[in-house]
Amino acid sequence: MKEEQSYSLKEAMIFSHKVGQLSKALWKVVEKDWQTWIKPYGLNINEHHILWISYYLEGASISDISKFGVMHVSTAFNFSKKLEERGYLKFSKKENDKRNTYVFLTEKGKELLLNTLESYQPSNDGVLNGSLPLRNLYGKFPEFTELMCVVREIYGDDFTSIFEKSFQKIEDDYKTNDFLIDSVLEKEEFEKKEVSSK
Amino acid sequence: MKEEQSYSLKEAMIFSHKVGQLSKALWKVVEKDWQTWIKPYGLNINEHHILWISYYLEGASISDISKFGVMHVSTAFNFSKKLEERGYLKFSKKENDKRNTYVFLTEKGKELLLNTLESYQPSNDGVLNGSLPLRNLYGKFPEFTELMCVVREIYGDDFTSIFEKSFQKIEDDYKTNDFLIDSVLEKEEFEKKEVSSK
Repeated sequence: MKEEQSYSLKEAMIFSHKVGQLSKALWKVVEKDWQTWIKPYGLNINEHHILWISYYLEGASISDISKFGVMHVSTAFNFSKKLEERGYLKFSKKENDKRNTYVFLTEKGKELLLNTLESYQPSNDGVLNGSLPLRNLYGKFPEFTELMCVVREIYGDDFTSIFEKSFQKIEDDYKTNDFLIDSVLEKEEFEKKEVSSK
Repeated sequence: MKEEQSYSLKEAMIFSHKVGQLSKALWKVVEKDWQTWIKPYGLNINEHHILWISYYLEGASISDISKFGVMHVSTAFNFSKKLEERGYLKFSKKENDKRNTYVFLTEKGKELLLNTLESYQPSNDGVLNGSLPLRNLYGKFPEFTELMCVVREIYGDDFTSIFEKSFQKIEDDYKTNDFLIDSVLEKEEFEKKEVSSK
């Protein structure tokens, strides 16, 4: 481990201002596109995020949702309750943890989440489209390694490992059709929809 | 220019979800730290951002503020008006453009902005602290090149060039003490404050 090096306040301020601008610019696009995407389903971003997290954690505590969804505990609780009232979530104990309460997707909740995923349109995704030149140049989408490293420093290892787990779950379920069990046809549609302007 | 390559919907969705999580996580830290920093001055983030932009553009139109501050035109206008009422901004024409109205920092506005800059505490900046391991490893703060490239694709060249201009202005004014004209002492303080745990 190298010793900490000195930096000037000026350097810190320029860096901080840069990150402020970049993160505001990025989040505002993501927020707008995310809202537009899920609006037809009567969901806001936090609600959709809660459905996602409950899905990939296969049952999530309110504190998991707060942490991985980057929202206040009371926000996590209130929106989870609203989703329960609408029949998309249920609160119960886990097999291996009888002390804490977890939220689980109901069948109706799974169906809703699946519907949102199936209606995802890459062409309406600003960040995705803004990343295509890098995708074309490198043969893969950018990994934002530095950003990932900074977020990991701030939120801890488990934040980014849950991250990886969520991508893996999409991969796996896509392969096994576990989650997309009723969607074999849709899966074929997915493949047909591959952009093939090569 | 290479031809566009194909990507699957699954790949797009994983990428999109990753960016959504990362940008939410990043922005929530930036937002919280930014709010905490400027709260003692009775400013919100948009108001502080407007002061910054008026400063480094040396007079900014409402559409400049909307664009570079990533806020709705009506938000840019309303907060600029509020800042005018408080005596921090004035609306007037530019020497070389008599048709459009620009907002300029008043002396009181410059002083306020300067005060906020002088009270900036790197130790309270989550992203800055989360970036120190990269700073120590590479000898400089991360540049987020991929992210910068994506933001440039989305918002256009002038967005990122204004970006660079704003950093340059901090550099220059710091050197010449143009903006920090009354702050020679503070500048010395700046230098004394250099972290020197090397």
